Parts: sequence; C-alpha cells; structure tokens
Amino acid sequence: MTAHLILHEYTQSGNCYKIRLTAALLGLPLERREYDILQGETRTPDFLANVNANGRIPVLQVGDRFLPESNAACFYLADGSPLVPADRFDRADMLRWMFWEQYNHEPNVATLRFWLAFVGEENLTELQRAMLPAKRAAGDAALKLMDEHLAGRFWFVGDALSLADVALYAYTHVAEEGGAFRLAEHPNVQAWLARVASAPGYVPIGA
Amino acid sequence: MTAHLILHEYTQSGNCYKIRLTAALLGLPLERREYDILQGETRTPDFLANVNANGRIPVLQVGDRFLPESNAACFYLADGSPLVPADRFDRADMLRWMFWEQYNHEPNVATLRFWLAFVGEENLTELQRAMLPAKRAAGDAALKLMDEHLAGRFWFVGDALSLADVALYAYTHVAEEGGAFRLAEHPNVQAWLARVASAPGYVPIGA
Repeated sequence: MTAHLILHEYTQSGNCYKIRLTAALLGLPLERREYDILQGETRTPDFLANVNANGRIPVLQVGDRFLPESNAACFYLADGSPLVPADRFDRADMLRWMFWEQYNHEPNVATLRFWLAFVGEENLTELQRAMLPAKRAAGDAALKLMDEHLAGRFWFVGDALSLADVALYAYTHVAEEGGAFRLAEHPNVQAWLARVASAPGYVPIGA
Repeated sequence: MTAHLILHEYTQSGNCYKIRLTAALLGLPLERREYDILQGETRTPDFLANVNANGRIPVLQVGDRFLPESNAACFYLADGSPLVPADRFDRADMLRWMFWEQYNHEPNVATLRFWLAFVGEENLTELQRAMLPAKRAAGDAALKLMDEHLAGRFWFVGDALSLADVALYAYTHVAEEGGAFRLAEHPNVQAWLARVASAPGYVPIGA
C-alpha cells in the first residue's frame, strides 16, 4: 500500500475504531483528523462537498480518493491480508457477519450507547424514546445470536481472526456504556472479546 | 462454481431478488425454495435451527453450507467475475455502496414499501406509524444522494456494472410501491435503472 492514508473520524465512534484497529493489526500508518459529530462538524458544506456527501464519519482517504462506510474501509486496508480469508466461502461468510453487524447490531447496540452515553436520555426526542424498548430487545437478540454462534468457536469465521471479528468487536466491547446491555449474560462473547484484545498489534478504542 | 446452489427466499423481497439477478447476470443455475414471511415461515424452529438463526431470508445454500445476508451472497456468487472490480480501491468502493444500501437505503426505502404495500398502513403498530415521516425523509435523502452521484456517471463504481448497481437496483426500482417515493424526482436514477434493466442476462423481480 503506497498511497497516503488519512482517517476522517470521531475517536469514540466504534465505526472509526474498526478502521484504526484494522490498520494497527496490519501495521499500517494512518494520519487522523478529528470531527466533533455532536457539534455537527460532519454536516458542514465543506465536509459534504469534499469528504462525504452522506455527512458521516468514518471516511478513509486514500491519496485523493475518499472511501466512506467503515466496513468497506476495513476491507480496503485488509484486502489480500490474513484478515480476509483466502477461501471463497469463508470470505463471503466474513462479509455476511459484517453486513449483519451494520444491519442488526450497530443500529441497536451502537445507537443505544450513543443515545444513552453521549447524547443523554434526557435529550432524546419523543420518537427516539419510543424506540428504546425495541432497540434494546433487538440489541439483546444480536448479542445472544453472537453468543450462540461462538459456542465451541474461537473466531466468527473459520479458525482465525478476520475482519468479521474486528467489525463486531468495535461496538460489542463498549456495549455496556449507557447501561442498555450486560455482557455478563453472554459468556462466549466475553471470552471472544478477550481473545481479540490479545491479538498482536491490538490497540484500544481510546488510543 | 461446482457446489449446488439453493436460494431460500421470498420472491417479492428485493434482498432475495439481488441474488437471483446476480446469478442471472452470471448465468449460474439456482434452485429456489419459497417461504411466506407474512406467515412467519422463517421464524419456525426448523428454519432457525437449520437455515438461519437470524430468522430471515434470503439465505444462499452452497452445498451443505448456509450464507445469510443478501449482499454477502451476491459477493460469493460474483467473486472473481466482472461484477466485482479488479481494482483494489474500486472493489472496496463497490462494498461501500453495498454497506450504504443496507444502512441508509434498505431500512427506509425497502421498509416503507413493505409496510405500505405488503403489511398495509392500517396494520402498522403505533411505533411504526410514528416512524413513517423519518423513514420517508431518510429514504428521500438516500434517493437524492444516488441521483447526485449518478450525475455524469453510467454506473455506481468505475465504468462498468458491478454488484453495487445490482444491490441498489433491487429496492430502488420498486421504490414507488406503497406510494412513499416518486422516482420522477430523480431523473439520473431513472436513466440508470433503465441501463441496469438492459444488461445482458437481466431478469425482472417477479420472474
């Protein structure tokens, strides 16, 4: 990889952390630019025109090209590395868990953490407050599905750490922030979290 | 591809159609098994134990292995074909649009079609009804972002049809069903829909 890499990010976002963790596991240097999403810094005309028309971080800048969507950025960094399985089915199965993460896990586990630990329950809209029980139930179901999948397995796909683990680790390991979820109810998940955290090159979310 | 392929599906689901369209564009034979999601046929103990613990279709069965998540199944079928760009950045950019589809497009454009054209507005829960305006606004924003991206472009990534187009085509071309969205407001999207529909091997959703 020869292009200069810049991560446009908000440090505490698990979606941004996925990319930093992938880069760290691969030993890739990453320049970082911080935006305060609570102050709307990713919705400015400049950001929308020059970084991401979708108004969101993370965005991985590769030279003069911009790549939004956390899991796509992780795939770009890890393509051809041991973090992407060489077997065709396993490679698709890795993506299966990454799509599942964005559809079933992130909108519940990550959103409740953001609403409760960052925005604050007292600042939620009426609609957001009405959505809390359904998101809590869906987040619990996602963690339970992970726990059942991990019974008797070390990693989500095949027998090695892959981007599926990185993508799911990011918001799972901070799922208790805000108080919506309890990881002690999911012992296989807890053991797997410890395995990811002991991988060579691992960096914590706040680093 | 030598393994026997079975698609566990519900024909009118755009997520299932993506996989049929990918297979058709590649000339791959696909056995099909239909489940009535309105009757809960993907939440039976048998389905949860043997097809998908997440209780959803589509699932692509490859021999005796099961692959949920529509975009992962498309990737499995198209891996190494011209539907996946050979260039590393473009390949990740294709995934970027596929992740964006599942996060920003499908939960709004597809969900409103399902709620309004299949479930029926009179059968929605109070919470679902409260979510209608936000989902309509987010779906409109997604279609607008697509329209702006397609200005001066034939395809979503690079200069050829890819899985990004297939994934986004599925629910966009039926976005008007249910009445929540008007494609005439997005002329670049309409022209692109016609281009996808004229690709060699194309099959319609009802086929």
